[in-house]
Amino acid sequence: MRPQIVLFGDSITEQSFKPGGWGAFLAETYSRKADVLVRGYGGYNTRWALFLLHHLFPLDSTKPPAVTTIFFGANDAAILGRTSERQHVPAEEYKENLRKMVLHLKERSHTMLVVLISPPPVDEEGRNEYARSLYGENTRELPERTNEAAGVHAKKCIELAKEMSVPFVDLWSKMQETEGWQKKFLSDGLHLTPEGNAVVHQELVKVLNDSWFSAEEMPSDFPHHSVIDGKNPEKAFQQQCI
Amino acid sequence: MRPQIVLFGDSITEQSFKPGGWGAFLAETYSRKADVLVRGYGGYNTRWALFLLHHLFPLDSTKPPAVTTIFFGANDAAILGRTSERQHVPAEEYKENLRKMVLHLKERSHTMLVVLISPPPVDEEGRNEYARSLYGENTRELPERTNEAAGVHAKKCIELAKEMSVPFVDLWSKMQETEGWQKKFLSDGLHLTPEGNAVVHQELVKVLNDSWFSAEEMPSDFPHHSVIDGKNPEKAFQQQCI
Repeated sequence: MRPQIVLFGDSITEQSFKPGGWGAFLAETYSRKADVLVRGYGGYNTRWALFLLHHLFPLDSTKPPAVTTIFFGANDAAILGRTSERQHVPAEEYKENLRKMVLHLKERSHTMLVVLISPPPVDEEGRNEYARSLYGENTRELPERTNEAAGVHAKKCIELAKEMSVPFVDLWSKMQETEGWQKKFLSDGLHLTPEGNAVVHQELVKVLNDSWFSAEEMPSDFPHHSVIDGKNPEKAFQQQCI
Repeated sequence: MRPQIVLFGDSITEQSFKPGGWGAFLAETYSRKADVLVRGYGGYNTRWALFLLHHLFPLDSTKPPAVTTIFFGANDAAILGRTSERQHVPAEEYKENLRKMVLHLKERSHTMLVVLISPPPVDEEGRNEYARSLYGENTRELPERTNEAAGVHAKKCIELAKEMSVPFVDLWSKMQETEGWQKKFLSDGLHLTPEGNAVVHQELVKVLNDSWFSAEEMPSDFPHHSVIDGKNPEKAFQQQCI
């Protein structure tokens, strides 16, 4: 009965129901209005995520999501020739993979609201600190992700969103507007702090409020308890439930 | 595709996706294993919730939840003759309403795991402080909810669970095992602090771990990124996705 919002992405989506996470925050925003389902796959790039697309969003299912967020790129932007190169997907292929996802979802339901979210910026010093905390001082010298590379992928994501007239959140740019974004928004140079999660939530809600899926304009399901007459409760339920 | 856990209850369920909430915590526990859907209705007692039962859990839908938690009683136990008496449902009727819910869900799917959760204890001083914070010093003298009344309802809930062989969480008793439960677990004498939410999560997960729906024993959906061969990604997906 209730419309669904599906969050499709990598670890930043998979972890979005941890305390302070943007997914849980979104579920609270759409409380009694929509369900939020997580389809986040840590470590995945868009090339690998394409293998899941038809399974997660089959063309023949009866009830497609009302909204789907696509939030990849943090792994695609891993640098060739460094420790995470296995995850690297060239920016142009990343863009075409995102296009395939959007086209599949629109084929699934032409009314579905698809929102593209760019990868966040990368704090290279934070990545190095994190690597040292895992592997000690003798760890690699060069970060496996750079902010510049993330920016190249982010630009491709936004480019595609504009080409396809799909709403988007340019997280890479947005976060860098705030001084001290490196530590304020990123816990290990890549993943989000509660404040970083709040940015994703806030920017996504702005996009949704500008669409036909604004939580503020959606009714809550079933009567608020204050309008239920203790002596004649059935009256309050007659319209919606009897 | 993914099994569903539905949380059916009053405000303590409706608020379970707020930061530190037990619902979001459960979604994280079942990450890539099950979806958690909230069907919480603030202020509702079991008498009013019965109006929703056939709408939320229709007998003819194709995919019933794998697990449903039923978590009412905090409003049913409001005291007659005091400010929240409109919400009061006598303990015996409360028990019979819970029975109707369990029977309906079992009719919906005889394999569904139904978990009954008793209302939490009530901190009367906390309720009074909360009332004074809303209405000033001249507020009512007598609390509209008492721990004793909540205990009567909690006992009925557990009694029914045992009669019907349904797993349960005796939250009323469990919380009172900890010294200082009044402020540690309850934010306004009735609703849960993050620590209180953690108790619900922990006790519920214990019950689920003892059932066929233990998260620890369920596989994550789709391959972990570390087993994907960067040069031949299709290999990892062959079993599950091709």
